[in-house]
Amino acid sequence: MTPQEMLDVAVAEARQGLAEGGIPIGAALFSSDGVLLGSGHNRRVQNDDPSVHGETDAFRNAGRQRDYRSTIMVTTLAPCWYCSGLIRQFGIGAVIIGENRTFDGGQHWLAEHGVQVTLLDDPRCVTMMTDFIAANPVLWNEDIGVSE
Amino acid sequence: MTPQEMLDVAVAEARQGLAEGGIPIGAALFSSDGVLLGSGHNRRVQNDDPSVHGETDAFRNAGRQRDYRSTIMVTTLAPCWYCSGLIRQFGIGAVIIGENRTFDGGQHWLAEHGVQVTLLDDPRCVTMMTDFIAANPVLWNEDIGVSE
Repeated sequence: MTPQEMLDVAVAEARQGLAEGGIPIGAALFSSDGVLLGSGHNRRVQNDDPSVHGETDAFRNAGRQRDYRSTIMVTTLAPCWYCSGLIRQFGIGAVIIGENRTFDGGQHWLAEHGVQVTLLDDPRCVTMMTDFIAANPVLWNEDIGVSE
Repeated sequence: MTPQEMLDVAVAEARQGLAEGGIPIGAALFSSDGVLLGSGHNRRVQNDDPSVHGETDAFRNAGRQRDYRSTIMVTTLAPCWYCSGLIRQFGIGAVIIGENRTFDGGQHWLAEHGVQVTLLDDPRCVTMMTDFIAANPVLWNEDIGVSE
């Protein structure tokens, strides 16, 4: 699987989240040989649960894994500090990022700590988040912990 | 409420987790005036869910909050990078830590980024984790992303 094909899975998750009335951020965890371990999307609105970001949902849905070093986390949006902390703590080896134009979290910190970071700058991801943030600024700020 | 009284809530959560056969780490989120917003404990074993640490469970159970700056996260064990990232991203203002003898995550990083960190070095917390890790080293390593 190419990075772009992996990102397609995360984009499909983000679009599903948008269709559910939620924040359109999706993610997926793959093994090094391209097997999908789990995918998910932000569920703040749908589940009324602030703890479920795209990456944490994908991580949960992948179930308990004994070793994350060879796994790849793919996400439509640059991981926030919460999700960057998840990636670092569990030693996920690589991160593929759809875009970081609308938000920038811990990607450089992850790279400094040995995570292989790939930025695809995918126009679908940029458009999806730009449109969402413009239409829902309060909800978006809530999701990244920015107070009014 | 004193820091010690807040920690008591987290210790009760950790003990509940232990009684359920889980990893004994508990946490609670309080408002600045001592109102309990939510508490929780690690649920890796109970829910077969690697994404639920003590702090993330307490954060979830506190529901959606609009501003975390004046809130206080109390945890029986020093927060790992995952939970430290949560605290930083959502701007939680203060962290009270039961102990950091058995595990040390991002507490210094949080302090560098303006979080008020209080370490209580509570003997109950030290004993609980020391005994648990000695009896369950494989499970403990799984929870902190250490591969064999």
